[in-house]
Amino acid sequence: MTGATLRTGGQHTSKSLLLIGTGLIGGSFALAAKSNGIFDRVVGMDRNEQALQRALDLGIVDAVAESIAADCAAVCVAVPVGSIAACVREAAAQAPLVFDVGSVKQPIVDALAPAPANFVPCHPIAGSERAGPEAADADLFRGHAVALTPVPTTNADAIATVRGYWQAVGAEVVVESPAAHDSRLALLSHLPHLVAFAFMEVASGAESLRGAGGGFRDFTRIAAADAEVWADILHSNAPCVKHYLDQLVDALHGFAAEQDSATLRRRIEAAATVKRALDATEP
Amino acid sequence: MTGATLRTGGQHTSKSLLLIGTGLIGGSFALAAKSNGIFDRVVGMDRNEQALQRALDLGIVDAVAESIAADCAAVCVAVPVGSIAACVREAAAQAPLVFDVGSVKQPIVDALAPAPANFVPCHPIAGSERAGPEAADADLFRGHAVALTPVPTTNADAIATVRGYWQAVGAEVVVESPAAHDSRLALLSHLPHLVAFAFMEVASGAESLRGAGGGFRDFTRIAAADAEVWADILHSNAPCVKHYLDQLVDALHGFAAEQDSATLRRRIEAAATVKRALDATEP
Repeated sequence: MTGATLRTGGQHTSKSLLLIGTGLIGGSFALAAKSNGIFDRVVGMDRNEQALQRALDLGIVDAVAESIAADCAAVCVAVPVGSIAACVREAAAQAPLVFDVGSVKQPIVDALAPAPANFVPCHPIAGSERAGPEAADADLFRGHAVALTPVPTTNADAIATVRGYWQAVGAEVVVESPAAHDSRLALLSHLPHLVAFAFMEVASGAESLRGAGGGFRDFTRIAAADAEVWADILHSNAPCVKHYLDQLVDALHGFAAEQDSATLRRRIEAAATVKRALDATEP
Repeated sequence: MTGATLRTGGQHTSKSLLLIGTGLIGGSFALAAKSNGIFDRVVGMDRNEQALQRALDLGIVDAVAESIAADCAAVCVAVPVGSIAACVREAAAQAPLVFDVGSVKQPIVDALAPAPANFVPCHPIAGSERAGPEAADADLFRGHAVALTPVPTTNADAIATVRGYWQAVGAEVVVESPAAHDSRLALLSHLPHLVAFAFMEVASGAESLRGAGGGFRDFTRIAAADAEVWADILHSNAPCVKHYLDQLVDALHGFAAEQDSATLRRRIEAAATVKRALDATEP
């Protein structure tokens, strides 16, 4: 099925997407969806008028909207995590199908409870430390995972339609619970960002970063990420991040206090082995 | 001047380098030094006989030695940090000029005190998470910084000769005190490695690392480093690493506990700004 079959009342006359939030992820989905023929037209909304204008200039959106209109096949909510629930509530009341791209899922479904049946919570696990419509890329999702975290009341046809969107733009869909997603991403993405931000805060106190090599630059690459997006993510997923942060701090102190050289070497070797095994898998 | 002018007693008949330790850094220096004409010949020693044989097979060394011979222009000590002082002491007693490539400097000069006048402590700030002679690269040092950390008793001619070696292989020489070096590197290299190891230890407890994206992979790239080398570095530079680790843990807890969204955003933005400024500089 396609989004078209979710039209209600015959009021939707074209296969158009309403994109709310024209940043990196939303802009990339718009470009990918048009180039793959999922939608004929993308209408954009963004409270940041400059970003919206740039998205229009760049051809990411074909037109702009002042408010959520009902004449679209689907709404993609691509705003910072803290603003998603309110945006989804309004969109789901008017449009046939709504999905988001937020990096944290449980707080969104909790804030909506009960989540509208025509809302499919999504998180494409792709991105960049770059931000804004200029960074949008039609191939951003190709070969990357997209998590779908429906709740028991989510409409099965809506899930199937949104799954089809992501598959059409080249992504691999993984279905999991919002809680499992948030725990997994706390470890794989949110805590690494927190560490990179904290590290650069410490480093900013140093006399000079002269001599920072490739290792340091890669280690802190994600620290250049968008502050508004990441403040929201870290705030929203604070309990899961704290869980792994406590483990990390224990491990850091354990490594630093290790007096036995052979034990230290074994711990490093075990960590390096896990990393090498990860590197041997596809990104 | 060249190393040749440091010959004593006319016993040195060819411009040869004795390389002790045939891993990534030592092997790369040997390749770079020969290709740049600094030495005619490289004689290798390594307690790891397999590595030594591979270095010979790869043409990194031209011959192997059983013990430190006096008929060389210089000795490059490229063994793990914990073994450097003993190796330098023996080499400096027999050869005209000795330098090392260890990542930590103060504990080495402390262990030698008084450090031999013909020993120039060095640290080329270049490397890779790869290890062993197979990873050796004649261009490894090109455009990278090399720290020279002489002590007041280090012979000025020896410093000038070793500076010339590094410049000849394309590196940029920085002279600083051993203590300043160790503090700087604790922040720029040693603590990032410690964090990456600790992070992979925590991650190894996760059910699956499925979905680890490019950010995670870059953040943990250095965790694949050589365990023996890094156990020695972290052990040797423990006080400096601990100094910055305490700051990092404070910052981590500060970020995680930050309830005010605007403050969190400002802290992230400040960190991201430092990172972007760093990225705008040459690596």
